Amino acid sequence: MNTINNYDIKLLAEEFGTPIYVYDKDQIESNYRNLKSSFVKYYPNTSVHFSVKANSNLHILKIFKEIGCGADTASPFELLLAKEAGISNSKILYTGNYESLEDWKELALHQDITINLDDISSLDRMLKVFKPKRISFRINPGIGRGGFEGITTGGADAKFGVPYEKAIDAYQKAIDAGIERFGIHMMAGSNNLEPYYFYEVVDKLMKITGNLFGQIGAKPEFIDIGGGFGVPYDDEEEPLNIDFTAKLIGEVIAEKADKFKLGTPELKLEPGRYLVANAGYLVSKVTGVKKSYKTFVGVDAGINTLIRPALYGAKHRSYIYGKDAPNNFYNICGQICENSDILDQHVYLPDTEEGDLLIFRDAGAYGYVMSSNYNNRPRPAEVMIESGKPKQIRRRETYEDMLRLY
Amino acid sequence: MNTINNYDIKLLAEEFGTPIYVYDKDQIESNYRNLKSSFVKYYPNTSVHFSVKANSNLHILKIFKEIGCGADTASPFELLLAKEAGISNSKILYTGNYESLEDWKELALHQDITINLDDISSLDRMLKVFKPKRISFRINPGIGRGGFEGITTGGADAKFGVPYEKAIDAYQKAIDAGIERFGIHMMAGSNNLEPYYFYEVVDKLMKITGNLFGQIGAKPEFIDIGGGFGVPYDDEEEPLNIDFTAKLIGEVIAEKADKFKLGTPELKLEPGRYLVANAGYLVSKVTGVKKSYKTFVGVDAGINTLIRPALYGAKHRSYIYGKDAPNNFYNICGQICENSDILDQHVYLPDTEEGDLLIFRDAGAYGYVMSSNYNNRPRPAEVMIESGKPKQIRRRETYEDMLRLY
Repeated sequence: MNTINNYDIKLLAEEFGTPIYVYDKDQIESNYRNLKSSFVKYYPNTSVHFSVKANSNLHILKIFKEIGCGADTASPFELLLAKEAGISNSKILYTGNYESLEDWKELALHQDITINLDDISSLDRMLKVFKPKRISFRINPGIGRGGFEGITTGGADAKFGVPYEKAIDAYQKAIDAGIERFGIHMMAGSNNLEPYYFYEVVDKLMKITGNLFGQIGAKPEFIDIGGGFGVPYDDEEEPLNIDFTAKLIGEVIAEKADKFKLGTPELKLEPGRYLVANAGYLVSKVTGVKKSYKTFVGVDAGINTLIRPALYGAKHRSYIYGKDAPNNFYNICGQICENSDILDQHVYLPDTEEGDLLIFRDAGAYGYVMSSNYNNRPRPAEVMIESGKPKQIRRRETYEDMLRLY
Repeated sequence: MNTINNYDIKLLAEEFGTPIYVYDKDQIESNYRNLKSSFVKYYPNTSVHFSVKANSNLHILKIFKEIGCGADTASPFELLLAKEAGISNSKILYTGNYESLEDWKELALHQDITINLDDISSLDRMLKVFKPKRISFRINPGIGRGGFEGITTGGADAKFGVPYEKAIDAYQKAIDAGIERFGIHMMAGSNNLEPYYFYEVVDKLMKITGNLFGQIGAKPEFIDIGGGFGVPYDDEEEPLNIDFTAKLIGEVIAEKADKFKLGTPELKLEPGRYLVANAGYLVSKVTGVKKSYKTFVGVDAGINTLIRPALYGAKHRSYIYGKDAPNNFYNICGQICENSDILDQHVYLPDTEEGDLLIFRDAGAYGYVMSSNYNNRPRPAEVMIESGKPKQIRRRETYEDMLRLY
């Protein structure tokens, strides 16, 4: 791998140093357009909200704003970032969990965003501070699946959502409090690649929705399907067929909305990973190759820069700049003084040496946002390739930055 | 649990907000004195270097400086922090791995610190930049054990150290380069609680040292045992008997040094966790209690604040302020929109409600240093209780701080 969006990676490393996160604007835009056009084809009343937690770089949020995408936010500061990017309140969702009263006080300043409540207790806390015109509850459908255990967001073990048996109580409490407009929200797991999985969970959600709104005598203004659209992290995985997924989801929503006389509620989507993962790369430099009991290639990125391999056992395919012929198995590690600092194991790579550039793919989601200063390493810079040129969209941290809180 | 070092935790939360890391200065000092006095009793020529990566708060480094403790550093900025704390170069170790040439250029400004080299390739890179008077190599003894898989730092799978079969080549190369003074370094795993384990690894290291230094015709100036001294994280674990551990280690070093005619090399220790883990607490506030398929208690700390439970499956005992009678099982989670954001599972706690303070023990090591801004949550403040009073030793991050890199 020698280029990102046709720009030479070696020039990037020379200009911006390493490690750096590099993003491809064209890929982001095309991910969004594919998703949006697929869903609109089968269910016209669809809106897309980028899940800010996947990559909260302000410049990336501005790109989404420009192409018409909304934002899904999970903390007060994520909401402020979305607004700073110019996204209007009507296109902003807030999907929190276990919010504090302090959080609600901050959110009270932006009441016309769409609020997805995680629990009845969230409603109670919110009502102590303000009463929005419209809310939804996040329903836990009792099923859920994720690419890795830790990122599963639905199912009986999940910390998220109202158990579907209790949904009626939740909405009734909101009605009693005087709230009159409603949607319904459900997480569809995380990083799933099988269209029929989405059919299964959305079908269940629509049955819950039909029964629920029949009982409370209201119509849902929106059906919000949070997350779930996966990306392949390895060669053996097939990309999610988004067109077919959209068809299955769109058709089941239309069919069940008709059956339960729900009108044509807006379908809200909250993809994060799907929109940015494959548009991001982590470019690192080989600092040393060591033949110990195994062969290790050390790079200047580590679990401080990209924690997904250590935290989830996640795979990020890697490549050596300018070298194409793999002929050795390597373990890739960082500079952190801890043995979990392994970025990949048993990787078939070309012979490599100090100074080589080693590039990790699919690092656009849950990369920088989870980075830390562990071992007192500064966080990397971020660069966007757009219109054929690189632009630094967040500078590298300095030692001065790391001392600023004293 | 109502107090930390006799100071009321509720007052801390009112004055400094939540979540906060709180440290007990007396406990830090007593941990150091116990360790140091135990080892000096059995092996007088012992020096202790706090492993900065466990907790790099500058104020804590200054405490160690005041009580005569040195510092073990793992990155250029950790070295600068130790110096900023006033620790002299003669008491600073640098124990890196896969250092870049850029790292060595920064380290070249402080050549009279003690450098532990992780590999022959580290020597090669260092020699491109400078040649210190004295070095050691970190030897991988082929055995290693840790409290959790990810923190094991020795053994055949570890990314650390020179395989002991290659140690002679490493030292010979350093001699050929004109370096004349040597020590030897070995990691003893991580978080071990059994004294005889330390006997086993140090015995092996001393045999390696005896054979090695016999062959190269030199005497080791120091034996550096990195890490390994554990702390109990659960009620069922017994604390490490440090006096007996010191006896076993001191005696085997003296015996083998005598046998191999090594003189009385300095014993250098690099404890991190042992000195600070039990002196630190994470104080969080209950934001909500949810009865879903399980009962969840949500707090305003999460994997962004303390990642050890999610990353290692680590246990941190927790307590509710002002409530003593456990009567329910809870799952404790944070506010992060991800299901790995679980701080503990199936914990027997008193009935709890919003606004309660929930305190995690043993959070002084690998807590704040591994924190992140995931979900755009600011990092917490840190407070030290000393002379009966709390003092903020790092302020809470603000939204402005989180925007400073644009």
